[in-house]
Amino acid sequence: MSVIRRGLFLGRFQPFHNGHLSVIEHMIEDEDIDEIIIGIGSAQEAYTLENPFTAGERFEMINNTLRMQSWYGIKPIHILPIMDIGSNYKYMSYLQTIFPQFHVYYGSNDLMHVLCSNAGLESISVPFDDEFHRSGTWIRANIKANKLDWRDYVPEAVVKYIISNARLFQWTENNICNK
Amino acid sequence: MSVIRRGLFLGRFQPFHNGHLSVIEHMIEDEDIDEIIIGIGSAQEAYTLENPFTAGERFEMINNTLRMQSWYGIKPIHILPIMDIGSNYKYMSYLQTIFPQFHVYYGSNDLMHVLCSNAGLESISVPFDDEFHRSGTWIRANIKANKLDWRDYVPEAVVKYIISNARLFQWTENNICNK
Amino acid sequence: MSVIRRGLFLGRFQPFHNGHLSVIEHMIEDEDIDEIIIGIGSAQEAYTLENPFTAGERFEMINNTLRMQSWYGIKPIHILPIMDIGSNYKYMSYLQTIFPQFHVYYGSNDLMHVLCSNAGLESISVPFDDEFHRSGTWIRANIKANKLDWRDYVPEAVVKYIISNARLFQWTENNICNK
Amino acid sequence: MSVIRRGLFLGRFQPFHNGHLSVIEHMIEDEDIDEIIIGIGSAQEAYTLENPFTAGERFEMINNTLRMQSWYGIKPIHILPIMDIGSNYKYMSYLQTIFPQFHVYYGSNDLMHVLCSNAGLESISVPFDDEFHRSGTWIRANIKANKLDWRDYVPEAVVKYIISNARLFQWTENNICNK
Amino acid sequence: MSVIRRGLFLGRFQPFHNGHLSVIEHMIEDEDIDEIIIGIGSAQEAYTLENPFTAGERFEMINNTLRMQSWYGIKPIHILPIMDIGSNYKYMSYLQTIFPQFHVYYGSNDLMHVLCSNAGLESISVPFDDEFHRSGTWIRANIKANKLDWRDYVPEAVVKYIISNARLFQWTENNICNK
Amino acid sequence: MSVIRRGLFLGRFQPFHNGHLSVIEHMIEDEDIDEIIIGIGSAQEAYTLENPFTAGERFEMINNTLRMQSWYGIKPIHILPIMDIGSNYKYMSYLQTIFPQFHVYYGSNDLMHVLCSNAGLESISVPFDDEFHRSGTWIRANIKANKLDWRDYVPEAVVKYIISNARLFQWTENNICNK
Repeated sequence: MSVIRRGLFLGRFQPFHNGHLSVIEHMIEDEDIDEIIIGIGSAQEAYTLENPFTAGERFEMINNTLRMQSWYGIKPIHILPIMDIGSNYKYMSYLQTIFPQFHVYYGSNDLMHVLCSNAGLESISVPFDDEFHRSGTWIRANIKANKLDWRDYVPEAVVKYIISNARLFQWTENNICNK
Repeated sequence: MSVIRRGLFLGRFQPFHNGHLSVIEHMIEDEDIDEIIIGIGSAQEAYTLENPFTAGERFEMINNTLRMQSWYGIKPIHILPIMDIGSNYKYMSYLQTIFPQFHVYYGSNDLMHVLCSNAGLESISVPFDDEFHRSGTWIRANIKANKLDWRDYVPEAVVKYIISNARLFQWTENNICNK
Repeated sequence: MSVIRRGLFLGRFQPFHNGHLSVIEHMIEDEDIDEIIIGIGSAQEAYTLENPFTAGERFEMINNTLRMQSWYGIKPIHILPIMDIGSNYKYMSYLQTIFPQFHVYYGSNDLMHVLCSNAGLESISVPFDDEFHRSGTWIRANIKANKLDWRDYVPEAVVKYIISNARLFQWTENNICNK
Repeated sequence: MSVIRRGLFLGRFQPFHNGHLSVIEHMIEDEDIDEIIIGIGSAQEAYTLENPFTAGERFEMINNTLRMQSWYGIKPIHILPIMDIGSNYKYMSYLQTIFPQFHVYYGSNDLMHVLCSNAGLESISVPFDDEFHRSGTWIRANIKANKLDWRDYVPEAVVKYIISNARLFQWTENNICNK
Repeated sequence: MSVIRRGLFLGRFQPFHNGHLSVIEHMIEDEDIDEIIIGIGSAQEAYTLENPFTAGERFEMINNTLRMQSWYGIKPIHILPIMDIGSNYKYMSYLQTIFPQFHVYYGSNDLMHVLCSNAGLESISVPFDDEFHRSGTWIRANIKANKLDWRDYVPEAVVKYIISNARLFQWTENNICNK
Repeated sequence: MSVIRRGLFLGRFQPFHNGHLSVIEHMIEDEDIDEIIIGIGSAQEAYTLENPFTAGERFEMINNTLRMQSWYGIKPIHILPIMDIGSNYKYMSYLQTIFPQFHVYYGSNDLMHVLCSNAGLESISVPFDDEFHRSGTWIRANIKANKLDWRDYVPEAVVKYIISNARLFQWTENNICNK
């Protein structure tokens, strides 16, 4: 077995939406990539307007979608939570130790592009397809406001998962923490 | 001795004011509650405009008031500091391990109501009596601006404690920490 | 109200035993002390052979005993959890900020005596009465080995609390943590 | 899609060996389980005699083995790192938030059996097949001592991974940390 | 050797500028001070618009300037990083343990003046000379906007260090962390 | 100014002894090194038998010795505290961000030699001169036992500093922390 070449897609996935899906589809089709890592960022956050879903719930949204797309059969896809560690300069060595070896970063965080470049890794800015894409912020606002439009912008498996689970509508303005 | 039934009142108490006092009075009179826990939230914060008083100082404000009211003689009242732990989803299990068993939550934090409901605990939204109540924010602004009105909205023991202690007027715009 | 003079008794209370009780009795009788603080040390520990009981459970053991002794009516007694913070030199300023002001330390931790002396506080080495006292280590070993002797060395309220609560017998050799 | 039923196998995998493999084989064959979670415990540890391999390296050992066994095609298998959090009583709510929902725990950690039982989850003590199984401790001692016997007790993909990667032989008696 | 009297100058030095330099010059000339400590605050921050430079890079800016000024030959000057510790009330005991003994604080942080006063230490508000001084915020905005004016407001050694090092222009709007 | 070449000497310095001094002397004489960094490891530890002295006290021992040797005039020497961060694999990127750039590591920690080699840095095993050298463990045991022999194995400035400061004899068997 020669070295397995992995692409890393990093996002918060609050929730997992069609824009994210199109990136993974692109990685599925990319023959230079043997395996896909989907890193769930800010894994420690949950219950708030900005971060309503736990890492486990976000994992299930992605996993259900991948099963429905039958993409697990094409190449191994690993969904991995990753905590914020409060320190930009240690983040890359944190990622490289907790995750299996990866070779290309996909995502839109400017700092990650800088850190990858310094570490000698490729990084690719992800182009979202605007026609059928809305941002996580827009989608969360719609769910919160009880507008149904958001259903058009997330994968079917995610719609099913969210609407069948009352826990997922527990978003609060408060944080337990003072700041 | 059958199981002791405890009510938990959670607040930041910056400072302890008449609205808080009325809630505790309500709990004193409530025959369903054998003991009262007063949880001092964000116990690690101090010295700032938003959180001027240390947990120890807030403890003394509450304790002095309870002594002046002679409420310790009616039912056991426990004043317990509780730190922010930076993670909403672990907060309830943190509370349940550090505090003695409690059965009803009193307070105004939406997320605590959600967490209590998920944990199978009762929770009660505290109605402040608006006639003689002002918010902590209003009271802090008045103390800071050297207006004396705030004295009408906190218990007498708290007025005495604050005005006799120069340390309690050390509020700064700065935080040691960068954010 | 002049300044309230408080004594601090600090221990792990795994479990609360007759030696601890005799110290508190001494503090109850000491006319120089207006209030008593019982600090539950290593509050974050639980479930292990060395630290089987949670801070909340240790709180209940002490509280039940104080109620049975009718000591709450004599002077205010505050039971306060205190975490290990992994740093000896910050511990005293941590204690002094989280706890209400205290003036005398009771206990057997050498380092606390040093820290109190440096901070200008009195500290008193607690003499346990050996005739009816056994150490926490001895008591835990007996509970674990299913010998009944331990019942003679802890207050009656603690015996009742422990034997009526199956959770309290969940002691494991393992820790979740690696070290 | 009805609820997906998941089994959780938790270990440190220093390294992944035949005993671990047999547990996963058992989970592959168990028709009550739709998906498998392999939790890599103490994910933050590496470079020491007790914990030589990083979480990422342990991930690759397991992943290579699963690929060679062609087990990914049978049911989804998720390999997830999990940090020690220094607190036994928060560990279960930590697991339940970071991981997707799971229903049965497999493993040999006594405390995890207690915590699962308290949380209303099934848990199963994993029987290792002694004929072809050696403990991680035994295997590490053999790798360290340059004896080749260890190769008989870990999957072929793990042997290949270790012997082809010089980094994996950097075990030190020292820790950077003082304790 | 009698007791060495030290002055502490505390700042973030993002970047080290002429205003900072003038304070150190003042401390060099002050005959009451035997040694100078320059504390690099928020040492853990880097890569962001507010905190672009690492503690090590800020150290080099200061060190290069001190060498060019030949100030090391006049009295010992110690440049020491200091982390934010997220807790105002433990900060002074943290400083006093990590740093060698100091006697006078120079700087503009209100809270530090309060904490020094409580600890019985002198503290001096630093007057910046407005004619040739611009704030760190102004300087960072100019560097970011590619205006060259900032070069007039930082020491020559800092200009050289910044313009010769591409890493120092990696400022991002993003933080790895969610907040 | 071309790039400044720095040597890093890392130790715990509990206390600073003649063996340490001989390494620094070697670095003073080594013409390949422009500046010297002395990293005080485990800076957060103090008051215990294994780590009696605070980082600030260890700083003063070293600083006093350097002044008495008149070594500050030869090349810049920076004494920098460094905390344990509980994670081997992030330690090198931590060092490289907090410290100014360094090029050669001196010391006896095996893991540091591995980490330096992986980071492309030189590292040199420090040979102590056995004739006049005793280990920190031996010296601490002698100080504790009130034998005076230890005075022959630490620099004169350290002897003076220790014997004139009662605080430095506050070593306890206890730690505040439970483990």
